[in-house]
Amino acid sequence: MSTSALTSAAPGVSSPTAAQPLLDRFRDVRAFSERMCEGMEAEDFVIQSMPDVSPTKWHLAHTTWFFEAFLLQPHDPEYRPLNGQYNYLFNSYYNTIGEQFCRPRRGQISRPTVREVMEYRRHVDRQVGALVEERASEGRLSDVWDTVMLGTHHEQQHQELMAADIKHVFSINPLRPAWRTGREDPAAGHPPALEWIDHPGGLVAIGHEGDRFHFDNETKRHRVWLEPFELGSRLVTNAEYLAFMEDGGYDRPDLWLSMGWAAVRESSVKENDWERMDKPLYWFRDGSEWWHYTLAGPRPVHPDEPVVHVSYYEADAYARWAGARLPSEAEWEVVGAELVASEGPAALERGTFSDDFVFHPQALRADAPSGRPHQMFGEVWEWTRSAYEAYPGFTPWEGAAGEYNGKFMANQIVLRGGSCATARDHIRPTYRNFFYAGDRWQFKGIRLARDAR
Amino acid sequence: MSTSALTSAAPGVSSPTAAQPLLDRFRDVRAFSERMCEGMEAEDFVIQSMPDVSPTKWHLAHTTWFFEAFLLQPHDPEYRPLNGQYNYLFNSYYNTIGEQFCRPRRGQISRPTVREVMEYRRHVDRQVGALVEERASEGRLSDVWDTVMLGTHHEQQHQELMAADIKHVFSINPLRPAWRTGREDPAAGHPPALEWIDHPGGLVAIGHEGDRFHFDNETKRHRVWLEPFELGSRLVTNAEYLAFMEDGGYDRPDLWLSMGWAAVRESSVKENDWERMDKPLYWFRDGSEWWHYTLAGPRPVHPDEPVVHVSYYEADAYARWAGARLPSEAEWEVVGAELVASEGPAALERGTFSDDFVFHPQALRADAPSGRPHQMFGEVWEWTRSAYEAYPGFTPWEGAAGEYNGKFMANQIVLRGGSCATARDHIRPTYRNFFYAGDRWQFKGIRLARDAR
Amino acid sequence: MSTSALTSAAPGVSSPTAAQPLLDRFRDVRAFSERMCEGMEAEDFVIQSMPDVSPTKWHLAHTTWFFEAFLLQPHDPEYRPLNGQYNYLFNSYYNTIGEQFCRPRRGQISRPTVREVMEYRRHVDRQVGALVEERASEGRLSDVWDTVMLGTHHEQQHQELMAADIKHVFSINPLRPAWRTGREDPAAGHPPALEWIDHPGGLVAIGHEGDRFHFDNETKRHRVWLEPFELGSRLVTNAEYLAFMEDGGYDRPDLWLSMGWAAVRESSVKENDWERMDKPLYWFRDGSEWWHYTLAGPRPVHPDEPVVHVSYYEADAYARWAGARLPSEAEWEVVGAELVASEGPAALERGTFSDDFVFHPQALRADAPSGRPHQMFGEVWEWTRSAYEAYPGFTPWEGAAGEYNGKFMANQIVLRGGSCATARDHIRPTYRNFFYAGDRWQFKGIRLARDAR
Amino acid sequence: MSTSALTSAAPGVSSPTAAQPLLDRFRDVRAFSERMCEGMEAEDFVIQSMPDVSPTKWHLAHTTWFFEAFLLQPHDPEYRPLNGQYNYLFNSYYNTIGEQFCRPRRGQISRPTVREVMEYRRHVDRQVGALVEERASEGRLSDVWDTVMLGTHHEQQHQELMAADIKHVFSINPLRPAWRTGREDPAAGHPPALEWIDHPGGLVAIGHEGDRFHFDNETKRHRVWLEPFELGSRLVTNAEYLAFMEDGGYDRPDLWLSMGWAAVRESSVKENDWERMDKPLYWFRDGSEWWHYTLAGPRPVHPDEPVVHVSYYEADAYARWAGARLPSEAEWEVVGAELVASEGPAALERGTFSDDFVFHPQALRADAPSGRPHQMFGEVWEWTRSAYEAYPGFTPWEGAAGEYNGKFMANQIVLRGGSCATARDHIRPTYRNFFYAGDRWQFKGIRLARDAR
Repeated sequence: MSTSALTSAAPGVSSPTAAQPLLDRFRDVRAFSERMCEGMEAEDFVIQSMPDVSPTKWHLAHTTWFFEAFLLQPHDPEYRPLNGQYNYLFNSYYNTIGEQFCRPRRGQISRPTVREVMEYRRHVDRQVGALVEERASEGRLSDVWDTVMLGTHHEQQHQELMAADIKHVFSINPLRPAWRTGREDPAAGHPPALEWIDHPGGLVAIGHEGDRFHFDNETKRHRVWLEPFELGSRLVTNAEYLAFMEDGGYDRPDLWLSMGWAAVRESSVKENDWERMDKPLYWFRDGSEWWHYTLAGPRPVHPDEPVVHVSYYEADAYARWAGARLPSEAEWEVVGAELVASEGPAALERGTFSDDFVFHPQALRADAPSGRPHQMFGEVWEWTRSAYEAYPGFTPWEGAAGEYNGKFMANQIVLRGGSCATARDHIRPTYRNFFYAGDRWQFKGIRLARDAR
Repeated sequence: MSTSALTSAAPGVSSPTAAQPLLDRFRDVRAFSERMCEGMEAEDFVIQSMPDVSPTKWHLAHTTWFFEAFLLQPHDPEYRPLNGQYNYLFNSYYNTIGEQFCRPRRGQISRPTVREVMEYRRHVDRQVGALVEERASEGRLSDVWDTVMLGTHHEQQHQELMAADIKHVFSINPLRPAWRTGREDPAAGHPPALEWIDHPGGLVAIGHEGDRFHFDNETKRHRVWLEPFELGSRLVTNAEYLAFMEDGGYDRPDLWLSMGWAAVRESSVKENDWERMDKPLYWFRDGSEWWHYTLAGPRPVHPDEPVVHVSYYEADAYARWAGARLPSEAEWEVVGAELVASEGPAALERGTFSDDFVFHPQALRADAPSGRPHQMFGEVWEWTRSAYEAYPGFTPWEGAAGEYNGKFMANQIVLRGGSCATARDHIRPTYRNFFYAGDRWQFKGIRLARDAR
Repeated sequence: MSTSALTSAAPGVSSPTAAQPLLDRFRDVRAFSERMCEGMEAEDFVIQSMPDVSPTKWHLAHTTWFFEAFLLQPHDPEYRPLNGQYNYLFNSYYNTIGEQFCRPRRGQISRPTVREVMEYRRHVDRQVGALVEERASEGRLSDVWDTVMLGTHHEQQHQELMAADIKHVFSINPLRPAWRTGREDPAAGHPPALEWIDHPGGLVAIGHEGDRFHFDNETKRHRVWLEPFELGSRLVTNAEYLAFMEDGGYDRPDLWLSMGWAAVRESSVKENDWERMDKPLYWFRDGSEWWHYTLAGPRPVHPDEPVVHVSYYEADAYARWAGARLPSEAEWEVVGAELVASEGPAALERGTFSDDFVFHPQALRADAPSGRPHQMFGEVWEWTRSAYEAYPGFTPWEGAAGEYNGKFMANQIVLRGGSCATARDHIRPTYRNFFYAGDRWQFKGIRLARDAR
Repeated sequence: MSTSALTSAAPGVSSPTAAQPLLDRFRDVRAFSERMCEGMEAEDFVIQSMPDVSPTKWHLAHTTWFFEAFLLQPHDPEYRPLNGQYNYLFNSYYNTIGEQFCRPRRGQISRPTVREVMEYRRHVDRQVGALVEERASEGRLSDVWDTVMLGTHHEQQHQELMAADIKHVFSINPLRPAWRTGREDPAAGHPPALEWIDHPGGLVAIGHEGDRFHFDNETKRHRVWLEPFELGSRLVTNAEYLAFMEDGGYDRPDLWLSMGWAAVRESSVKENDWERMDKPLYWFRDGSEWWHYTLAGPRPVHPDEPVVHVSYYEADAYARWAGARLPSEAEWEVVGAELVASEGPAALERGTFSDDFVFHPQALRADAPSGRPHQMFGEVWEWTRSAYEAYPGFTPWEGAAGEYNGKFMANQIVLRGGSCATARDHIRPTYRNFFYAGDRWQFKGIRLARDAR
């Protein structure tokens, strides 16, 4: 892996020569994964409720394997793996490194147990700590800095997957267990009406530049021509989405992309009612009232909260019904970057993130000021209209890390802005998330856009 | 449920009026299920490695539910279920009782946990004990005797399924864990050569008669005409089966039933090598040597042990290759019953059963006497050539218990004799087990027969 | 192919030494296949409307290939195939002869065209004629007699498949074309009420004996013990089956075998309404009236006609609902054989057969005499309760012909008696037809039986 | 349908007020479809060799239905359909118009026959002719002009599908029939080496503008910023693609997109060898030589011809192997438009098109001049790297025609330039074709691009 391909500074860290800030970040991220598991039973860690989901146990092991395969094995000739088979069991998709255990069968493997996985974590944590300290003492910390940073950001991505996966796992259990009981009260008062934030477009630049951490798919920074456009001032709420549903939104093929309409119709044979695509994932009716499953257990759908767990097809159909469209990723990024430029880092940190341990998007406050975009970061990932493609001049990282992002640049859609399951220090305006158009189990919602009038 | 439909005496119990023998059997059987789980990790109880397999946790709960649904609910008006959802989660296939949770998703349910299932068992055990004692004190024990007996035999059947299921679960894990470490040494010396035991046939009677416990599918006892035949004196060994393999047995369509040949060819796309039907299930090559996965972990295939984990198609193809055929269930039963008649109960108890905690079929001793059948009971279930059909005059039990056996009388094949995973006091000559022709994960083997010369 | 394995006399033919009777039968059968195709368009010959169905063009070619592969190639060293690829395209399932074209893709092959297939038929017809005459002149006719006879009976079986297959092909076309327009008027007056014909059972013999043509699966003739039973005097009518439907027969799991109930529920997602298993195949509602598709086009269901196009599962559920059961094949054969013994060949010829060119089962006449079985031959194949197994002492024909019947002896159910699509001179009391329990597209119906009271 | 949404002039036609040019184009296009069918047998028109393929008969009827549904029904109140069911059978995907017959079952419908479809064509042709002449005589031709034009371009698209579909149909037949026998000799001499044509990029405009016919998805014309790039001077040849294959291109996961690599591996179970994705579709080995199936039957792969029948995944992997990438659609269009601007319409007409009745891409002449792009139009559709998305300001046509293009804007990839199966007067620089990344059965090939050095 090319050290030049990764950036050389951790967020908030001024120098890559001191071990402590790096170790602090490493330990914080590693600890947060385990904090997320508090209160879970051993049995909960094992389940793969659909092929897209991975068992929690697998996430905990895979993020550990990542440090083993990308950091310890290449940089520490003395390193001995705890178990030679883990390189097969916990490699997700890196063909450069070797064969992988069949993904849809991750939930059929009882061993290693949770306890053994935790021992694996301890083993690797110790070795990573020792390696970092040794390199720092030798003045060669920069050789491993980027890889440790990448590993922590990788683990933060998996923390988000863990939250979404465990939500699916718990949701399909007829006992409807709650993962976490505490959550904040919804905001008082209704959010302000949707406004349209004008943007003149023109020749803008998007993509990452500079030496802070970022993924390869955010580069190169490049110019894009935008026609004038308007962006919705906030996320679409459950109340707004319900109006679409009550207007027959799921019954009108003219609102849907062809594959979306096919998905709506095929979904009618789903055993689990709430997996039918005639409402957002996890919604169900209790008499005349709409409820949804949340990580705090079932509760009524709150009209003011952002709609969440919708597919690209639903977001696109909703936008068409609303006489609007989804933003392109360039449109989104330009507005997001300008917000951060004008308000500073606080703009990034204002929303709901995993750090808040709520794991559910929150309603916009009734007193949110007019004339500016809200909820750009945190709450829910926002579907753009942009296919996930390489930026001009894109070069994948060298070596196995080159498989991290580049090989998925087909048939997926870009999402922006992070969610209530994203770590606060993990998001930035240039961040590109990507999923298949039909995926709903992540925390995904809708922001509208439209051409300037 | 009709009390007259079930028999009125437990094995070895002289009177159905005293509570103690019934409770002894109940507690012994219940305890054996839990003893089988000793040493297992919580994660092991959760896995469903293929749709046919159920998680161990599910077996422990379902056998408990059986007493709840068939005994406590109908007979104890005060009874309150521990959890109302268990009737949905742990009902296997009794439509008379209600809807059931989707079978292929049993492995996607982390809750109730193992601990909660054990509490469920305790809850039901207490209530069953109380009910039996109350009825005994009232002199009405016979009203519930049959149902308690049925529940214990039902649980013994699930103990056998647990052994087969957990073997599959552990086998597909690349770490190849062992379930049990201890097992007996193979017998010294080779078993005697296969002999053919003559039987004159004629008008014989098969099926159960009398008041000891039996299933409804063993009745009515009825007459059958048999042509003279010969039965193999012992089970087919691994060495014999290897000769078939080395003679190209899996490559010669002329040896196979049409659906068997299709299964052989389709199996070539199995991810897991040992699930390919070009050798018994669990076999794999290590260099030039054949190994197989056993519940004590991988070990070399012993030439003298009975071949195990073959499908009906393989048993049938082997028999054709050997110039023989499989016995009909009537042929098998007549010989088995005559053996028990001449030697007494000892004939039933001589083989390897679950009580021995070996869970692997044992080789016939080198000094086994000539001129008589061996290995008729225990070791491996023996495929017959008989489709599983109703006996003349068959009437299913009344009520929900009528779904126990009768509704499966299509497309399955009868197996006879019990296996190393069967409880010793659970088997009898009239016992009819049944599986689909392609099933291999139970402990199933081969005994040959042929027409008299 | 062993000439001793096949019988040595054609029906109604006294001597196997004269060519003319054999050629007459050969030409009659070959001509009947083509007569069935009169009025069909070229496009109709190509369609495979489901994997079980073969295109008419394929049937015409396969029955020709059968003579090529079983008669001309082995017996005529000079024989040159018309096209070397036909041996691959038109071999159905004879592994002994070679690889076969993938069955579910038979409908994806436009060439050879119908005209080319007809040329193929002419080519083979000429060669068969020449071979038979040459052998007769050499006094060696008996060497090929059996094979020619087998080929004609094989083609008669395919004529029946052609009728069933083309019915399915036409049925799924929304234009609902008719294959044949003319058909006889239903009989006037209602059939007599169902009576129960007693039989004492005992030690009876079933299976073929003697030198008239028969299939290998009808041998050996052997003894069977039967308990006393009663057989329904006629087929179940549409009116009777409707009573079952109106009584909720398709909604009561207690009436169904487990796999049948699963089939009922899975069928609810069928696109084509009449393929749903909540009524016989081809039935549909027009307002309050039941109609069905017939080879003469859609018409109202006639209450007095035998119910047709039901699966084994439906036949079994109906019988259970009616407080009866299906007959075993031995019970059926004993009654059928006794009928023929007492009435002579006329008993066999009385029903509706393909020769009548009606291709729909006819109602029993109102004046049918009491006290004896009716509709035993022709009208509809009658589901028995017997799995299709080898008779004691069964030996398949030698060579490729051994694949004709024996390799299907698993997972199928025996049907008896022939249907309105069977040739009149093709049926006999010992004839064993076999299909999978879920198959409905053949002309299959229901006769009840019950244990003697 | 909004007449303002469609353009108002046919290619080469100066005025939309005279009926004759419109009728000439209508009749020419209609006649070409039927000319393509000359020599085909009735059976050939029926086959659907995979779900993506439609029977030729269906194409002939659907293109006729298009005029019925979009022109005659809305504009002629007197119009009576020939058969009311055709609106269901031959509607492809227009939900606005009504339900459609299940697409994967198009090959299971024998009626209407080819003759009946031809009668349907005659019926609609007469009515269209009468309507056009009536409107011209009334001075209201412009009301229907656009729709007739759309119908002819729609039919030209289906002509291309017909060629690709019939190629697949004939290819899977083991008899390997030829559709057309005549084809031109390959050019003498090898094509010149690949050159890189520089383009400075910058702020360019793409998309259609003006009143000539175009599809809605080509609008709005809009600005795009391009970084400097280089475009390959010609298509990739078979010889070049073979070098990729011989270098292990299909065995190196690092060259492939993730879904492409999955497709390569899954393809290994294809029954038909040439459908395996370890070579272009239709390729097969004959000893040491590579052959492929063409519409003129099997013939050796010519090294100088453009490679054809590759998926996006293969095109992308080849480009990566070659150290290049695929062009974006904007890059392609800018170069294509500049070529047409500098050379006039001749630039569009120089390649191989359906008009040439060769239906196979031709090698570039050895004397092709240096320093300019070749083979931009005709030969093979060229995969771009661009997902098929809406242009800024895109508005679908009104009414049912709005389903023509817009609803497919997800998960597909843009191709440019037309092919040897495209009509010469159907292509233009702004034309956007689109297919799924795995599709190979159209005439698709590869042109490389790269960032400016």
